[in-house]
Amino acid sequence: MAELSYPIKKLIEELKKIPTIGRKSAQRICFFLLKKEKKVAMELARAIVDAREKTFLCSICFNITTQDPCEICINKKRDHSKICVIEEPFNIISIEKTNLYHGLYHVLHGNLSPIKGIGPEELKISGLKKRLDSGPVDEIILATSPTTEGNATAHYITEMLRGYGIQITRIAMGLPIGADIDYVDSVTIARAIESRTKI
Amino acid sequence: MAELSYPIKKLIEELKKIPTIGRKSAQRICFFLLKKEKKVAMELARAIVDAREKTFLCSICFNITTQDPCEICINKKRDHSKICVIEEPFNIISIEKTNLYHGLYHVLHGNLSPIKGIGPEELKISGLKKRLDSGPVDEIILATSPTTEGNATAHYITEMLRGYGIQITRIAMGLPIGADIDYVDSVTIARAIESRTKI
Repeated sequence: MAELSYPIKKLIEELKKIPTIGRKSAQRICFFLLKKEKKVAMELARAIVDAREKTFLCSICFNITTQDPCEICINKKRDHSKICVIEEPFNIISIEKTNLYHGLYHVLHGNLSPIKGIGPEELKISGLKKRLDSGPVDEIILATSPTTEGNATAHYITEMLRGYGIQITRIAMGLPIGADIDYVDSVTIARAIESRTKI
Repeated sequence: MAELSYPIKKLIEELKKIPTIGRKSAQRICFFLLKKEKKVAMELARAIVDAREKTFLCSICFNITTQDPCEICINKKRDHSKICVIEEPFNIISIEKTNLYHGLYHVLHGNLSPIKGIGPEELKISGLKKRLDSGPVDEIILATSPTTEGNATAHYITEMLRGYGIQITRIAMGLPIGADIDYVDSVTIARAIESRTKI
């Protein structure tokens, strides 16, 4: 569009690289940043640079951190005998919010996916084995998503750790709390029936 | 959340200041920027700073620009006898896309809204009068939104320009092309009937 000057076009273009942000959203965000007080835009830019420059992956659990090992891995109040295996760093936020889990984490940074060319080498899977070798762990909780890829990843890790004599568990699948059974897909209902528990 | 380090929390906080971006979206965008190649994040930050530092408002039409007067205002190929009055700079993109309008613009930067405390002084309305004084204009097209506030703004400008002897027009309201009449609200249908045209 000849009517938009270069810096505006460039900003819209960069915003569009973010998943879920399309052309219209990028335009709206761009003009919001141009119309708001300059401080808002400048602080956002600064925060992006800071987040990139001051963070890296924890060498133990591969969480994104500003210190190595990360705050969770060095926290003595946490239960170091449990490791919860997750796909992405932001999954930690969701699990911590439950206030129910106080163990450690292990971030895979994805799931196995032959279609996308993601094999075990592309994930932080081998780091998990090293952790078992270096300290006593009682339980590995596999908290990858209940999708084909998440299940395949959970299965791969289960096989990999066979022989370590550790309890391996998978987070439960079933109806989400508050769901109307009429609106839940049949695969989930089937799974909920299979995994039914005594009351 | 004690588990997120400061630069990450700060970035999520800054992203949340953008309208339509909530907590979950801010988290996703944050981790996308942290996981993608560093270049993506750095270029976005640079683009935000550039867009803020290199742009300002055109002194004639109040469009966001890198040169004053803006590219549209100095373009001799455009029809300088027509001025289309719009709410926001990004409205230009939508109108230019039609390839139907080749006149000039006048950006109000909002609509009149007594509830939000936005009166004529808060908008770039007086600049419009100055433009009529400084050059021959045949037509003012009022392209504010067909909302209470957009209509009030259009009405205010119509009154303000009474006596200038210029043709003042309002963009048409009616059924959007391709709409199913069953799904269009009755106010729009009423307006479409009132504004019916001979065939």
